[in-house]
Amino acid sequence: MRAHEAGALHGNDLVPQWLPYPSDVNHLIEGLWSAKTTRNARGEVEIAGVGVSEIKERFGTPTFVIDEEDFRSRARLFRDTFERAFEPLAGVDMSYASKAFLSIAIARWVREEGLGLDVCSGGELAIALRAGSDASRLTFHGNNKSDAELTFAVEAGVGRIVTDSLDEIDRLNAIAARLGVSQPVLLRVTSGVEAHTHEFISTAHEDQKFGISIATGDALEAIRRVEAADALRLEGLHSHIGSQIFDTNGFEVAARRVLALAKEGREAIGRPITHIVLGGGFGVMYTTQNTPRTAEQLAEQLAAIVENSCRALELEIPRLGFEPGRAIAGPSTQTLYTVGTLKDVELGGGQQRLYVSIDGGMSDNIRTALYDADYSCLLSNRTSEVEPRVVRVVGKHCESGDIVVKDEYLPADVRRGDLISVPVTGAYCYALASNYNCALKPAVVSVKDGEVSEMIRRETLEDLLARDLG
Amino acid sequence: MRAHEAGALHGNDLVPQWLPYPSDVNHLIEGLWSAKTTRNARGEVEIAGVGVSEIKERFGTPTFVIDEEDFRSRARLFRDTFERAFEPLAGVDMSYASKAFLSIAIARWVREEGLGLDVCSGGELAIALRAGSDASRLTFHGNNKSDAELTFAVEAGVGRIVTDSLDEIDRLNAIAARLGVSQPVLLRVTSGVEAHTHEFISTAHEDQKFGISIATGDALEAIRRVEAADALRLEGLHSHIGSQIFDTNGFEVAARRVLALAKEGREAIGRPITHIVLGGGFGVMYTTQNTPRTAEQLAEQLAAIVENSCRALELEIPRLGFEPGRAIAGPSTQTLYTVGTLKDVELGGGQQRLYVSIDGGMSDNIRTALYDADYSCLLSNRTSEVEPRVVRVVGKHCESGDIVVKDEYLPADVRRGDLISVPVTGAYCYALASNYNCALKPAVVSVKDGEVSEMIRRETLEDLLARDLG
Repeated sequence: MRAHEAGALHGNDLVPQWLPYPSDVNHLIEGLWSAKTTRNARGEVEIAGVGVSEIKERFGTPTFVIDEEDFRSRARLFRDTFERAFEPLAGVDMSYASKAFLSIAIARWVREEGLGLDVCSGGELAIALRAGSDASRLTFHGNNKSDAELTFAVEAGVGRIVTDSLDEIDRLNAIAARLGVSQPVLLRVTSGVEAHTHEFISTAHEDQKFGISIATGDALEAIRRVEAADALRLEGLHSHIGSQIFDTNGFEVAARRVLALAKEGREAIGRPITHIVLGGGFGVMYTTQNTPRTAEQLAEQLAAIVENSCRALELEIPRLGFEPGRAIAGPSTQTLYTVGTLKDVELGGGQQRLYVSIDGGMSDNIRTALYDADYSCLLSNRTSEVEPRVVRVVGKHCESGDIVVKDEYLPADVRRGDLISVPVTGAYCYALASNYNCALKPAVVSVKDGEVSEMIRRETLEDLLARDLG
Repeated sequence: MRAHEAGALHGNDLVPQWLPYPSDVNHLIEGLWSAKTTRNARGEVEIAGVGVSEIKERFGTPTFVIDEEDFRSRARLFRDTFERAFEPLAGVDMSYASKAFLSIAIARWVREEGLGLDVCSGGELAIALRAGSDASRLTFHGNNKSDAELTFAVEAGVGRIVTDSLDEIDRLNAIAARLGVSQPVLLRVTSGVEAHTHEFISTAHEDQKFGISIATGDALEAIRRVEAADALRLEGLHSHIGSQIFDTNGFEVAARRVLALAKEGREAIGRPITHIVLGGGFGVMYTTQNTPRTAEQLAEQLAAIVENSCRALELEIPRLGFEPGRAIAGPSTQTLYTVGTLKDVELGGGQQRLYVSIDGGMSDNIRTALYDADYSCLLSNRTSEVEPRVVRVVGKHCESGDIVVKDEYLPADVRRGDLISVPVTGAYCYALASNYNCALKPAVVSVKDGEVSEMIRRETLEDLLARDLG
């Protein structure tokens, strides 16, 4: 590889400040790739011993490739580290937030690894049950659950329903009473804390659709109302402060407010509120910009926050709950694409951007367009000693915003037919997939010990037209 | 309805400047609703004589309701007005851009109304053919067509393939040669003009994935290369400058550049370039902020632009082409939702925002989140004399950005079970629909002369799980 003056290309339109010139463009950057992702002797990327070329040959592209053991071990790691950290307190319940990505196999893995499962629709609940989930380990979320969904959840014996509004308390009570069930509920409260990456906003109120406000007194009123409801059993409080969060400062402020409410609630109903769920939102590494804390660090810091807050409030320590979704599913998965059209686009000032078109796009990963998300990628079918250059990886949709990886270095000899792997696509990618431009949804495969299993088969045109009645 | 001091609520966080206090909140604002949308004597909104309650009863909610005659008449209007305006010149070809929304019935309507059809994937092409489209009236777009797609298009006899890169010229030529076809092509060129709403940017280059640059000379080189390709027939040039455009200034600059290229091309290949397609992108009215030009105004202005530009260039006037998608499909359709949870959220300063949750959301309309789009809505199952208040209409997904209508006035007595209609959802809503949170895709129905036809049936959990292999 030719020498390159680092910095020469920097500080212009082409290369964002955060993107370092790679010392080795073939290198699998630590933290970006699932545990079993390696390069084999031929220079090809393998997942758990299966090469990307074999996956392409058998399943085509684009394909989501899940490293099963990586998913499972992250689930276990969150469970083990949090259970260890919270054991000296009053324990913890760990649940996988299935909105990140759910299939029957995923629900089964989560159950086998000993985590509960969060669902937020009748569809997610049905899939969890079909996978044999223990209903008592399920938590049902949502700002607008229908009566049908509440009935389904109560009948199924869902462990906790997270009640999101005063109105829902009454509806759920009527449904549970009719079914002769004493339904455990959590109250979703809004703490006024909104966290994102390394910053958080703390106000009295939150201008969003979820939860019941602590600041207005509605949350305390809701505690009283659940307590008074014949067919409901108040199990605790629920708070969620945001997503893709990299430190615990926002959790600290939210925890204090929620625990203070728990203390007020104890006084109001004459018994302790025994469970507090502080949601999820733990950040993952999509590019070298991101520096997530380890599960151990999170567990220790969060346990300390809870312990200190309870001590300050003179409150008995409740049992805690956390709901990682992205942090379990995201890094387990890479999306495999085939390179099609390559195009050098003049930007003026002598700069050229290489547009690398792949055979998917915003239909299988809308996060770049929707959240202005950054991703990384790698040439994965081979290594190259050619000097890297800055590329933009774009999809094949009829829309200029159809970008998957805004900025990345790839070897300058990247060519039609090459395979590109985009890591950390296990969360909120397939879950948000569309049929834009009549694109067919990709296959999802899982790989373990050298074996590939088709988890969700690729969509066909017949699937797409099955509901078109002409 | 009580009197209200217009302005009293304005200039704060709750009401955006553009949103006027409604003189009658029950009124169907002209331009927002399909031609056959009315309120009946009972105060219920009807589409072509069918009440929203009947639609809900028969098909459930959310449901996309297409006013068939509105769709057809917009298609006809674009065809008729543009044909009339361009008849004194060299004529015009009007095509429907199917990426806005495509189903078998839609392709049939477009054919019956005498328009061509633009497709940009093998899936869209397959649907068009299944609907009995005349392949010679189809145009195949795309920055990254696969060899399989190009082969499919050539074999099917697609009228024009829009070649998007130098590399694609060679690939397509080889495919057409192998199939013994002389394939007509348009060259997609980039003019350096990017238009959006009332502004446009004009630079030498465009930092995007589509087309071949005029400024670098690549477009002229592409003209020569297509002319030299044995199995390709250069039919003309294609340019597309953006979407949701409200005036023709951007088209004017782009047309001049493309026509200047056509003149250079004529000199280079020794014969005139006979066709110029200037794309689509005509804006529609989503809220009272938008003031789209009529099809007649657009046709006349665009014809004048072409005529004047050709005169200035001393160029014979080519046959033109335009590709409305949103402007035909968008306003024909409303999405019908049922109201669930209502929540007053304190914003501080004594302000409250009413969050109206509906039974759909970003899974059936991601435009609000994806493009920061504004929408309107109406209480559609009844009228109300209660004073209107500002609401935010949100979906049921587990995400705080799940907003459908950011700001609108609804009667303050809007309640659970009411129906809300969101107009102008015919384009880029169903087309981008996802199964986020395992939501099932809505039904799409068309209404004409008091009759409802199910166009696409509602998805079931079994549909969703059909590809999940456990």
